[in-house]
Amino acid sequence: MSRRIAYLGPPGTYSEQAVLAYDGAAERSPFPSVMAAAAAVEQGKADEAVVAIENSIEGSVTDTLDMLIHDSRLSICKELVIPIDHCVLAKLGQRAAAVEVVYSHSNALGQCREYLAAHYPRAGVVASLSTVKAVEDMLASARPAAAIAPRRAADLYKVDVLAEGIQDRGGNVTRFVVLAQHDSPRTGDDKTSIAFSFAEEDKPGQLYRAMGEFANRGINLSKIESRPSKESLGRYVFLVDLAGHREDAPLRDALAQVASMTIMWKIFGSYPRFRRKA
Amino acid sequence: MSRRIAYLGPPGTYSEQAVLAYDGAAERSPFPSVMAAAAAVEQGKADEAVVAIENSIEGSVTDTLDMLIHDSRLSICKELVIPIDHCVLAKLGQRAAAVEVVYSHSNALGQCREYLAAHYPRAGVVASLSTVKAVEDMLASARPAAAIAPRRAADLYKVDVLAEGIQDRGGNVTRFVVLAQHDSPRTGDDKTSIAFSFAEEDKPGQLYRAMGEFANRGINLSKIESRPSKESLGRYVFLVDLAGHREDAPLRDALAQVASMTIMWKIFGSYPRFRRKA
Repeated sequence: MSRRIAYLGPPGTYSEQAVLAYDGAAERSPFPSVMAAAAAVEQGKADEAVVAIENSIEGSVTDTLDMLIHDSRLSICKELVIPIDHCVLAKLGQRAAAVEVVYSHSNALGQCREYLAAHYPRAGVVASLSTVKAVEDMLASARPAAAIAPRRAADLYKVDVLAEGIQDRGGNVTRFVVLAQHDSPRTGDDKTSIAFSFAEEDKPGQLYRAMGEFANRGINLSKIESRPSKESLGRYVFLVDLAGHREDAPLRDALAQVASMTIMWKIFGSYPRFRRKA
Repeated sequence: MSRRIAYLGPPGTYSEQAVLAYDGAAERSPFPSVMAAAAAVEQGKADEAVVAIENSIEGSVTDTLDMLIHDSRLSICKELVIPIDHCVLAKLGQRAAAVEVVYSHSNALGQCREYLAAHYPRAGVVASLSTVKAVEDMLASARPAAAIAPRRAADLYKVDVLAEGIQDRGGNVTRFVVLAQHDSPRTGDDKTSIAFSFAEEDKPGQLYRAMGEFANRGINLSKIESRPSKESLGRYVFLVDLAGHREDAPLRDALAQVASMTIMWKIFGSYPRFRRKA
């Protein structure tokens, strides 16, 4: 029986592309939010959820981080890095030169600003609520229109692809994580994601001492960031990605030391580091 | 002559509320984006820009951070902390019990989820592009509708306020910064905001050593976070807020040490710490 994988829908999103890249044979279940996709796994309605966690240009997906910190009991069992390729889509037969308005999500419009100025200098841009919604807005438009959206949306909506890979900067990738009831066993090339906060307002050196536990053992941090605790401005939850598996001896010892300094402590999981297939 | 202050419009936004709280006598100039508001100051069309930088629930305003890192030559000369009070607005005479649809920006909908479930259990929720756009969507709706928006939007659009302060968590505040050609002189109770990145991929202890320069001088970090460098996943720009003025001797020395370790280094400015008026 194929796995059931929950993702942020509707079909055609980059999240669906990530599910297809992860397991083309899986049964795909779209949900209206990242939270709903995770809840489906917690309730046994899906085996795993694939959710975006970080984009190389836009930064962290804060909905996902806040859910992992505050709401979810799931673990990260895998990471995936998916290239984001924006396309110009238009109704069948629409000529690019006649386009008067371009729809997309504001992030995508921002990532293609130079392309739009060069190729659609006279078109207005209109923000849509998602790249897939932009295709629907484009189809409903009374004026000649285009949408910036994923390649896959073109197949699903039966529209033309006027151009591909139009983002202004190369190397636009999004990191997705797979959420499940358990994390992954040790492979020898792993990462571990944790979250923690301190009891009192930041005293000089509190975070510094915690980081020393990793630095002094030669453990690499691949990411550090802070999220608001939601209690008051200036109180933070720190999110750190570390090289190694939580069962590797040096990391296990460092985690125990840091845990003892914190008031909130959560290991999101250990999982194999993503390596692009050769 | 009154100051000209640029902000993210249209009139009615929380940004306009922040300008009013900062200087009620200023000439207010709305702009369609944070970037456009800052550009107005750089071009001499406005004296200062007031822009949101951090919310106690949603976290950083990444548009503002990325602009300060990559695009702007302006300095932070002041910070303001403004309470965010969401209101339920409706057409004049609309009864709450008959409301079938509630419009707002997705952030505001998220911050009022419990209130909506308790008070509007049968209403659908629809995401709008901003809280002010939500009021326009509500006015254009064919079905009985409400909008979650700032108090000030009610005055501007001549609509009713059905409820105030409806956010699920108290203490919802947004920190704004004032951008100008220069930062502020020393007051004895100041903060300094900086951004930096390292030349090579994170080596264990690189950030740790930089933080040691502050910790070992007893300098408090009120915030640390990372933003993508936009070059590749896993390369970050670190943003740190520090207690003290860049001309205070201990901080001046620490900044010089850290600057020498970095490949990218930017002091956004020193400015008086915000204190609520008694």
